[in-house]
Amino acid sequence: MTYRLRAGLLAALIATPALAADPPADPPTQPPVTPAAVVAQAPAATWQAIADDELLVMTIEGGRRVVIQLAPAFSPRHVANIQALAKAHWWDGTSINRVQDNYVAQWGDATEKKPMPPGLSVTSADDYALPIANRRLAVTPLPYPDAYAPSTGFVGGWPVAMDGSSAWVPHCYGYVGVGRNVSPDAGTGAELYAVIGQAPRQLDRNIAVVGRVVEGMAHLSSLPRGSGELGFYTPKEHQVPILSLRLASELPEAEQPHFQQMDVASPSFADYLRLRANRKDDFYDRPAGGVDICNAPVPVRAVPVRAVP
Amino acid sequence: MTYRLRAGLLAALIATPALAADPPADPPTQPPVTPAAVVAQAPAATWQAIADDELLVMTIEGGRRVVIQLAPAFSPRHVANIQALAKAHWWDGTSINRVQDNYVAQWGDATEKKPMPPGLSVTSADDYALPIANRRLAVTPLPYPDAYAPSTGFVGGWPVAMDGSSAWVPHCYGYVGVGRNVSPDAGTGAELYAVIGQAPRQLDRNIAVVGRVVEGMAHLSSLPRGSGELGFYTPKEHQVPILSLRLASELPEAEQPHFQQMDVASPSFADYLRLRANRKDDFYDRPAGGVDICNAPVPVRAVPVRAVP
Repeated sequence: MTYRLRAGLLAALIATPALAADPPADPPTQPPVTPAAVVAQAPAATWQAIADDELLVMTIEGGRRVVIQLAPAFSPRHVANIQALAKAHWWDGTSINRVQDNYVAQWGDATEKKPMPPGLSVTSADDYALPIANRRLAVTPLPYPDAYAPSTGFVGGWPVAMDGSSAWVPHCYGYVGVGRNVSPDAGTGAELYAVIGQAPRQLDRNIAVVGRVVEGMAHLSSLPRGSGELGFYTPKEHQVPILSLRLASELPEAEQPHFQQMDVASPSFADYLRLRANRKDDFYDRPAGGVDICNAPVPVRAVPVRAVP
Repeated sequence: MTYRLRAGLLAALIATPALAADPPADPPTQPPVTPAAVVAQAPAATWQAIADDELLVMTIEGGRRVVIQLAPAFSPRHVANIQALAKAHWWDGTSINRVQDNYVAQWGDATEKKPMPPGLSVTSADDYALPIANRRLAVTPLPYPDAYAPSTGFVGGWPVAMDGSSAWVPHCYGYVGVGRNVSPDAGTGAELYAVIGQAPRQLDRNIAVVGRVVEGMAHLSSLPRGSGELGFYTPKEHQVPILSLRLASELPEAEQPHFQQMDVASPSFADYLRLRANRKDDFYDRPAGGVDICNAPVPVRAVPVRAVP
């Protein structure tokens, strides 16, 4: 009963963010009919290198590797703090200490006493969204309604929600935000979490989103849920040690991961969005005619060697 | 830094479906300001018993228990099949055989050869949505835009998406659907899955949604992701055995779980929705002013003894 189901469902999902297969050797003769096929067949020029100092490589207990792409264009002060913390090896020896089902996996210093390196920026609620009133933003619009914002789209490789004055990266599955105390504390960036469930968009503009997991998401999402209040691990022996957290640019060359993201202004991305909103393969009887901003993840792929810019 | 964060985030999430704490002994003197507080303080009359023959109790390896509430009002033929399969103990000895990150955990007979009990209904695409053109449906509307449907709301304890002619239960986190082959096969109900990530709403009206997990969701969502294509467990030794799957009504009385759901026509539910869309506690600087249908789960709670109807 299910083998063809399985083939059908292949079209139904690309993980968030999508990891594409290598492009085929020969150009396709038929236009692709699934989002996955669009990604697989996208020309090389569609792909943009992600800077190695915008990638965090977190290695947790068991040698499991999680790679996070940072979003300095949207959260410059938090990202600068995170880069400084990574360079100081601040997270080494800390832990994943909270996993709450359908919400977040959170990591940092569970003792809350570890000294910070000097020079971190002070942040505020101004860091939760990017002012756009007086600038031209190259937006690829997503022309479907959203319950949380007047409009949504894509800017520079990132999903965005927007009102007339600002743009912000929404809390989608696999996206990484900054834990904080009650307002006006906006957090340093030392306490981070990744979304592991339905997008908690109510956190948008109440917390800084600083990046997204591009590899190893399942190492976070499949962790045991914590038995303490809000999913904190109790006893603390359940905490999952972080062995190291580094900028990819600071790793030995042989250990550096390299990633590319799809150009959101490309024809391939337009095709991808169209098919995300209107599934056309044999499995689907009824195309939805729309797609949520968190259900159209920007395709990201690992590449063996960093492309020459 | 994070202890108050933790208290703040308490307001930010109720698991899907929400399990409420016991009501307080004394009536509150302040109106509740968080969705969780609304649920905790809801009067007894707000809660509706869920029928024991609409609850499936699945016990998987290690004695872990998952309880699923069925939705016969929306998927009567699939639900009747599932009740028949449970009474035949059909799932005993089958397995959870697929877990794909940010998508589904799926179970059933991995060999696809196990004979079905006699008398199952034949299903079709007509079973994916409820015709509503000629009936009055008591809808509690959710007045926010949705990318997938003209309108959304709640009917008889369930979230619904609607167009002018039909209503269907959306694919939200923790919701259970019926695996199928390519169209026109709509599946018997023997192959089931639970959503473990961002709501894959593109499946709405392409697959029958038959229920939701009301207990033990983390036993599914934290399973290791399968290493095979589409998250299928390979080798098959990774499959997670299902020890038994029963209707709650067929269990010995001492083992029967009992659940209640919040009346979606109650003032408490109206308060709950309002606060889900507009967080007001100290943690939130900026209420969203809206909420997605999959981010306002109908509160469900376990109760020690089935209420007399």
